[in-house]
Formats: sequence, C-alpha cells, structure tokens
Amino acid sequence: MPGQKNYHLECTGPALETVKQHLVGQDITLFGSCFCPFVQRVWVALEFLQIPYKYYEVDPYKKPADLLEVSPKGLVPGLKLHKYTPPRGLNESTVILEYFEDLAAQTTRRSLLPVDPCYARALVRLQCDHIGRALVPAFYRFLQAQEEDKQVEGAKDFRAALDGLVALFERAEREIVQGGGAAGAGEQRALRAGLGLWLEGGDLSMSDVMVGPWIFRATNVLKHYRGFDLAAGEKFTAWSARLFAHPAFKATCSTEELYLDSYERYAENRPNTSQVANAINSGKPLP
Amino acid sequence: MPGQKNYHLECTGPALETVKQHLVGQDITLFGSCFCPFVQRVWVALEFLQIPYKYYEVDPYKKPADLLEVSPKGLVPGLKLHKYTPPRGLNESTVILEYFEDLAAQTTRRSLLPVDPCYARALVRLQCDHIGRALVPAFYRFLQAQEEDKQVEGAKDFRAALDGLVALFERAEREIVQGGGAAGAGEQRALRAGLGLWLEGGDLSMSDVMVGPWIFRATNVLKHYRGFDLAAGEKFTAWSARLFAHPAFKATCSTEELYLDSYERYAENRPNTSQVANAINSGKPLP
Repeated sequence: MPGQKNYHLECTGPALETVKQHLVGQDITLFGSCFCPFVQRVWVALEFLQIPYKYYEVDPYKKPADLLEVSPKGLVPGLKLHKYTPPRGLNESTVILEYFEDLAAQTTRRSLLPVDPCYARALVRLQCDHIGRALVPAFYRFLQAQEEDKQVEGAKDFRAALDGLVALFERAEREIVQGGGAAGAGEQRALRAGLGLWLEGGDLSMSDVMVGPWIFRATNVLKHYRGFDLAAGEKFTAWSARLFAHPAFKATCSTEELYLDSYERYAENRPNTSQVANAINSGKPLP
Repeated sequence: MPGQKNYHLECTGPALETVKQHLVGQDITLFGSCFCPFVQRVWVALEFLQIPYKYYEVDPYKKPADLLEVSPKGLVPGLKLHKYTPPRGLNESTVILEYFEDLAAQTTRRSLLPVDPCYARALVRLQCDHIGRALVPAFYRFLQAQEEDKQVEGAKDFRAALDGLVALFERAEREIVQGGGAAGAGEQRALRAGLGLWLEGGDLSMSDVMVGPWIFRATNVLKHYRGFDLAAGEKFTAWSARLFAHPAFKATCSTEELYLDSYERYAENRPNTSQVANAINSGKPLP
C-alpha cells in the first residue's frame, strides 16, 4: 500500500556499529532481526556476558531455509552452534538466555543471576515470569488495539503489568531489609545483585534483560502510536535511564526511526503482521 | 445448585497416604490444593528430589490469609520457608521448580535437569517452554469449551500441543544419535538424562514433572468430560505409563473421583471457576 512504512532489514546507530564488529565466524551465530525485541534480549545477554558471537541479520517475514533449520517455527532469535558436527540449533529467547547463563558460568564467569543462594535466584525468576507471561503480551494487546475503548483498556493493562513488575522489585528490596535471621552478608549481596539496575550501583540482571526491549519500545513505539507516557515514578525513571545507558543494552539499540517504521504494521494491526500479532488477535498464547 | 459436584478439600488414595507422612513441621511448607495440577508439579519435584517438606491443604477458593502472605495472588502452590526470620514466601510453580532444582543441587544432589553440558539443559527447557506456553493453556481451552465447534477446535489444539511435545522429545533423541563430533560420551549421557522417562530406563526429568499433571488429567478429566482418547502412538503410551507408575508421581495422585468432581466446574465453564479459567475465557495469559 502506498504510504505504508515497512520494517527495516538492517540495524542503524549503535546497533549497526555492534553488528560491524561481529561479522566474523564464531562458535555461535545469532540469527537476528534488527527491530525484534526477543532478539534484543539475547543480544544484550551476549554483549553483557562477553560470549563471542557472529550476528546474522535475517528477514523474519521471508523465513530463509537456514533460519528454519535452527528455529523450527521460523522465529528469531535462533542460534547456530558451530562447535558441534553437524552444527546444532537453538531457539526461544528465554531458553537461549538460560543457555548463555549456563555457558558463561563455565567460561566468562559473568552472570545475570545471583549464583547463590537459591532464594535470591528465585526472586529474579519471579520477575522474569511476570515479564514473560503478563507484561510482554500486554504490550502487544495495547499496541494492536484499534478501537478507542480497547486502547484505553490496553493502556490500563500495560500500566498494571508495569506496576506489577515494580511491586516485585519492591518486594525483593524488602527482603534485603528483612533478611536478618538466617540471612548473612552473602545473602544480602545476592539479593542486591538480583535486583540488577533497579538499585543504584547495580549491574544488569536477568530481569533487566528480559524486559528491557519492551521498556525501550514503550518510549518510542508506544509513545508515538499510542501517546503512552512511560513515567511511573522517580525510581522507575531512574531505573529505565540506567537500563538505556548500560553499554550492553545501548550496543543493541538502533535509532528511533527504525522502530517507528518497523512497528507501524503492529500499530495498524495489519493482517499477518507476525505470529506474535496473530496470537494476540486470537487470544492465544504467544508462539 | 443441586446436583452440581464440588471440588474436594482433601486428597484421597496414594496422595492421602503421602500427606499423612508430611504433617510435621519442616523448613518448607507446601501450600497445596488436592486437585490442582500446578501444585502437583512442585509436589512431585519435592518427592523426587527428596527435599523435606510439610504438606498443608488450603481451599484455593477461600484464599486464607496465610496463603496470601506467601502467594500474593492467592494462587497455589505457595511455599513458606521457615529457615528465614521472618519466614519468606515463594509462589509460581515454574519458579518453585527451579528453586527446588537449585536447592537439591546443594543438598540432596538429585536433579531434574542434566547438570552439564548447557545444550542438554537447553533442550529440556525448550520442552518446558512448550508445555507452559502451549500445552497447558490448550488443555483448559479444550476443557472449558461449551459449543461443539469450540470443543472440536479445542481437541485439535490440545492434540497439536501433545504432538508438539513429542516432536521436541524426538528432536532431542535425534541429537543423541547425531552427537558425534565434539560430543563425547558425557554429553550423550546428558542428552539421554534430559529425555527423562521418554526413554526406557530413564528417570524423571523437569519436562516430565512440568507436563505430568495435565497428561494425567487428560486420562480422567478430559476422557470423562470430553471423550478424549489420549492414545498418541506406542512410544507416547509407554512414556505416560512410566510417568504414572513412577513412585514420585504416583505418591501425589488421588483417586479418579476426586478429579472428576473437582473439574466439573471447569467442564461446565461455570462463572468464577478460577483465575486460570477466567484468563482462558478472556483470551489472556494464565495468571
């Protein structure tokens, strides 16, 4: 259709610079698409965990044969693991994140989860669970909503999902304070580490990585197409500022235009926008 | 309403015997409801990983205050962790499963996931991801469907989700065979371990635990209310027989009547059956 914007096929800005530094073959090839937030999740993790990789841009609407080999539904992100003969594939962003976390524990010794104790890890997983099951679907329901009442409902649900995440962060903060008794200094450190960038002076956590791409798209895509104002209190604003400024996150961000163009099809809820969009429209779980 | 069956408030059969052996205070209290499959997940894991616990039956429709303390949405399962002062809470079945897995690694040394390499763990997580996001919601859509065409669609979707799980098991099996090259005997063992009871001679895996409660309810609840026949090939039948006969699984099963009674409200899609049922009816993600 004339006038319609199309999705981009190449990163721009800082993300393009990062791509240029990752064109050489490595044990891991990341099959990515420049605007895809699920890709950005695992890309940020690769950068943060300092795992060597090659970036390989694919058109997710064309589903090239080599993508289908590593990701049976043709969804990005996909990984090709060249250390195996024949090479192996891996898909699903959350599964890939856990894979990188396991891999880094053995190699680069960096981590997105507190190593110990188990309870500090569990609190981070609670946040991740909420992000995956509530916050991410609420983002798409909001963005794809066409009628005004649906958009109002979408905004309300997305706001509630953000508030739910903040509530989980604040719960974890309370646990640090309450952690007398059996909890020692090591556990307090772990609980702090699990809170990632939510605490000033913290570093990236699994939750930051899981949710970051949608928080970022709330500041451009949702703002532009739905007039959404992300502001949710001082602490939230300080957290998102730390997230967007973090080197590993920034390295995977393109310029605003790329996101606005690429998401027009979602904002207009065009038919066959994506498997994610179709799932939202039919009230089914994300693919 | 006269003639309507109500959900049970006490386990029966083997599960009741297990409850009787777990009434003494321990570091962990499991807040459970006898018919709830999400509870059964973590209960099977406790039994298998040999983690000491106390079982505490709660009425999930009454949401007692002590449940809300450990599980903010009032959903079972919930954990109360008494080793902390004040005691801490934990909720969400998948988060609790990972918590138990971490805990057992430090204490009982039993495991539901291959310890190494990362790739074998990732294949199990792929299965778990499919179970949580596709198979479990498909179960409820099928059970709650009232009109004939919706029931036909529900059966088709649930069957497709089962086939999808089998495809992931078979994919992991192929990786064992193909695992020449960099893959050594240790990796082959890990890939086998990750397949759990799917392979003859295997033991419980995280996937078995994640999906077992719904496979079991397919053989009684879906069979009774929807005439569903679980039969999906010889390998599938052998796997489910091994699952149902496994001591840790069997120890958490009540008698058939308990499930049929407790799920009548789902099968009739009565209003306010549960937060899970409401989410399915509104096309939103499970709570």
